[in-house]
Order: sequence, then structure tokens, then C-alpha cells
Amino acid sequence: MSVDQVAPKSAKRDHGGGVDAAARRFGGTRDSWLDLSTGINPLPYDVPDLPASDWTDLPDENARLRLETAARHFWNVPKGAAICAVPGASAAIARIPLLAAADRVRIPEPTYNEHAAGFAAAGWQVGAQAGSASVLVNPNNPDGRIWQAGDLDGALRVIDESFCDVTPEATLMDQATRPGTLILKSFGKFWGLAGLRLGFVIGDPALVHQLSAGLGPWAVSGPALRIGALALEDQAWADKTRERLQSDAARLDQLMLNAGAEAIGGTTLFRLYDVANATDWQMRLASHRIWSRVFPYNARWLRLGLPAPDAWQRLERALA
Amino acid sequence: MSVDQVAPKSAKRDHGGGVDAAARRFGGTRDSWLDLSTGINPLPYDVPDLPASDWTDLPDENARLRLETAARHFWNVPKGAAICAVPGASAAIARIPLLAAADRVRIPEPTYNEHAAGFAAAGWQVGAQAGSASVLVNPNNPDGRIWQAGDLDGALRVIDESFCDVTPEATLMDQATRPGTLILKSFGKFWGLAGLRLGFVIGDPALVHQLSAGLGPWAVSGPALRIGALALEDQAWADKTRERLQSDAARLDQLMLNAGAEAIGGTTLFRLYDVANATDWQMRLASHRIWSRVFPYNARWLRLGLPAPDAWQRLERALA
Repeated sequence: MSVDQVAPKSAKRDHGGGVDAAARRFGGTRDSWLDLSTGINPLPYDVPDLPASDWTDLPDENARLRLETAARHFWNVPKGAAICAVPGASAAIARIPLLAAADRVRIPEPTYNEHAAGFAAAGWQVGAQAGSASVLVNPNNPDGRIWQAGDLDGALRVIDESFCDVTPEATLMDQATRPGTLILKSFGKFWGLAGLRLGFVIGDPALVHQLSAGLGPWAVSGPALRIGALALEDQAWADKTRERLQSDAARLDQLMLNAGAEAIGGTTLFRLYDVANATDWQMRLASHRIWSRVFPYNARWLRLGLPAPDAWQRLERALA
Repeated sequence: MSVDQVAPKSAKRDHGGGVDAAARRFGGTRDSWLDLSTGINPLPYDVPDLPASDWTDLPDENARLRLETAARHFWNVPKGAAICAVPGASAAIARIPLLAAADRVRIPEPTYNEHAAGFAAAGWQVGAQAGSASVLVNPNNPDGRIWQAGDLDGALRVIDESFCDVTPEATLMDQATRPGTLILKSFGKFWGLAGLRLGFVIGDPALVHQLSAGLGPWAVSGPALRIGALALEDQAWADKTRERLQSDAARLDQLMLNAGAEAIGGTTLFRLYDVANATDWQMRLASHRIWSRVFPYNARWLRLGLPAPDAWQRLERALA
């Protein structure tokens, strides 16, 4: 939002993806920067030519059904669990805290900060103690921790699997039929199309329905319905992409190790490094117009996304 | 949403845009139908070639600022009013009832049914009596009624101007700085890109901020940010489009008059006709694979959107 025609309000919370702000601060056009501050696959699923009707018509029920059917199959959603496509996992994260009366919610830190922000905004008390809700990010962002079903507690059980598509064996999808459970999937990260705004909520039918109703009709765009369906029906692309990300993550770890940084976690979409002074590293990379991620709560943590094939040389030069 | 792999749930409420359901019922592929059941401009704003980053990157603050600045200028948003781009006016309609404690809301009938549904779902008592909130659709859907500022009452004052871009002189934008006021704008209808999912909320900064926070970060897609900005900066297109829609609406009224239906309202994006039996008319048009809109509360009302230039002949044949 904007009030009057003043400078843009920066995002309230610390996030990756602020390469436009980095360009304002350090110079250069946005396009001249290499953005490694996110966990988005740099080789996205190909955007096909779209029929004009995807843009012009209200998104239709058939297109939504095709997408949700492809998603069920791709993630092996158990029978009895509901699924709903949403305009980005963030849209669901912002609404989930409204699905139950505010109480105490357990969100193990550190993790993706929108969960705590959303629950707090809805009047919940957020902490490490068990309450009537819990949120696990699986694998966790930024450290890559894998959780077990037993780590959940409370009546409302949220599992954010935004980064789980690189490690499908780590999914807690078998929890989807347990009452009170909601599993989030993100389309933007693994398929590399974060600008499209597409995600999924899977789980307890009553909660999924309540969330869906709260988003209003036609929540997902026509292009997102089509591109999402094509991508989720393409198992070969997913298999190939997982392999490539795994080998690229190993290459990045070796490159960083040579430069004096030790990999301590992450997924194959982002790597977490332990360094003596993360801000120094961020500044050094920024002088080469490479944007990275540091964390306000840990001065030794530096997170890097994976470079696209044509960007390795630039990163290697910056670290030389 | 879907539960298991059963047939799609049809929309809970009666809407235009159900041409896929019409095709299932009456036969033919979706593409073989002429959809006149909505109020969407059939000659959309041209979708430009999009840079890959609109799809791949998290939508950035600069792009959002450009869009919101263009929107401020296009709609003459008064200084002191806030503006926030949202993924479709429907997203805002679903959330607005959460911005105040549930009480009684006045929504003059008949009108677009998502407002009453959203307020009722949030626990409000919806009716014709004054309460702590009121909603006006200006011009009203489906009858085209134009409202005045004095018709609003209550602390939360919602003005849905989704169809006002064909009659900019009817806007109540001067109310945007009045505390408690929210004005909705839709991008999909006048610019003919309903699949894009873009709308705006304008008004009381505290309420707009609350609504924006509830949508989560990156609510609007990269393509919507760019296409919306280009379109709202293009005043010549808007002027030309208003003229064409006006002349096409007159042509449609004359055609329908010749066929025995009298225009009794609407805007130049949709026309409302009084007929002896609206369902008979809908069936007759459906036999030519033309989909129209009837209303459960009035058996004499038939609503038609405007045909594209190449579709007039088909409508003329169906009515001959």
C-alpha cells in the first residue's frame, strides 16, 4: 500500500527478495544484480504461450479442478484430505491464524518469520511453549531441519512444506487426514515462478473450506491455474530438477568452503553457511552486485540461493 | 477446493462466468460458447510481452509503487487516502467484513451477492436497515443505479466501484478521505483482463493497512503489477474504450428492443433487460451457445455483457 506519493514503504519484516532495495542502496539497475537472497530455483519451469482466455476470462472451475487434481497426484495427497489452490503460500499463512480462537501457538525459532507475524497479528501469543496450535516449517528455513509428526502439538497443526519438493521423502503428507492439520505447498520456489503467486493448502476439509471461503471466489489467476497444472503433471521435469539442484548445491558448498565458509544446513534450494561475520560477507558480495541473505538474530549466518548456470563464474570471481 | 477426486464443487453463490458449466450442461466445448454472462469488456487491454523476471522473481516494491502511483493518478485519489493493490476486488470483498466487529450492515438489494455473503460469513447481520456499516455498489450491479455520498451510513463505509470506469463522473472518490471509507476498484472488468486478478482498495489509511497486512506479502503477481501499471498509465486507451462501449451498448439495446426486450438499466459493460420470461430467453440463447445471466430473485431480468466485434452477427442470428 502507499499513502500519498511518498517513497515506498519497505516490507515490515526482514525477507529475501529485496534486490530492488539493494540496487537503490549500492547502485546499479535491478537487472545488473545477481539475486542469491532467496530460495527460488534459478531455472524455472518454462512459461508456455498462454491462450488469451487465461488473461481475459474469470478463472473457471474446470481449470481449477485440473490443477488441484494434478497437485493431489504430485504430492500423493491422501483420500479424505482436502486441497485448495491459493494465490501464494503467503496468502494462506496470513489467513490460517484466523481459523481458530487466538490462544498460544508454538513456533520453534529460528524459522520463516511470516508465521509468527501472522499469528501475533491475529492476537495469538507466539512462543516455544505448547499451546492450542503449532507451526513447523519442514524442511525448516533457514537451517533445513527436518521435523517428525511427533513434533506437532495442539488442535491446529500447520506444516509449511514450501521447500520440501527437493526432498519429497521428508514430507509429512501422511498427517493430512489428521483433524486440525494443514500442510502448505509453495509453487514459486521449486518451479522457480515466484512472480506467478501460487500455492496450496492441504488437509482438514473443514479448515481448508473455511480458508478457501475467506479468500473469495477466483482467488487464483488464469495463468497460474494453467502453468501450475502443466508443471505438476510433469514428473520428469521434477526428477531432473531435483538431481540438478543436488549437484549444484554440492558445487556451491565446495566453492564456499574454499572461500572459508562452512555449510551448516539448508536445502538444495538454499544453503546456510557459518562465517565469521555475515554482514562483512554480504557487503563483499554486494560490491560485486550479488545479493545474499543475513539474519538479524545470528551474526554468523549467511544464506545463499543457487546461481543459474550462467552466473557461477560471476560468483567465483567475487569469492576469488 | 476439492475433497478427493470427485466432481468439482460448483460455486456456492450464483455468478456470471459459469460458461464452463453451461458447456457441460448444453454441450459443445467451452471455446465454442459466446459468454455474455459477465460484465467484462470483450476487447481487453493488450497483454505485452513480459520479461521473464515478472514470472520468476518475488514481485518487488518498485513495481508495486509504480502500479499504485499510476492508479492514484488514474482515479484522482485524494491526498491523505491510502491505496493498496489486491489480487482481485474479490479478495478485498472477502476480507473487509473482518475489519470491524460484527454488527448490522446495510446492503441495499438487489446487488452483487459477494458483499452480503462475506459479511454474513464474518457474523454480521445483513439487511436493509442502517447499522455500523454500509455497502454500496456504484454503479450498482445489475441495475446500474448511481448512488450519492449521502446514501452511505455507519462507521465502515464500503463503495464498490468495480463498474465505475465507464462512468468516471459517477465516482464517489471524494469520499476516500472520510474516516471509515473504503472504495474498491476492479481491473478485470473495464480493462477486460479478469483472469489476471487485480483490484484496488482506496481510502482510510488505517483500514487499508489492516487489509493489506491480512493479505500477506507479495499479494499481487508480477504480471499483474506490470500490466496494471501500463494500462492505468494509458489514458488514451481508456477514453477510446469508453466511447466504443457506449456505442456498442446502444447497439445492443436496439437489437434487444427489436427482439422484444426493453433495456431497464445497467452500465455500458452490461445491460439489464426486462423480458416476459428470463429463463426462456436464456434457454433460447443457449441453444445458439450464447450464455447469458438470469437472476434467482427476478424472473423478468436478463443481463447481457457486450459482444466482441466479431460476435455481433452470431447474436443477431440467435435473436432473429
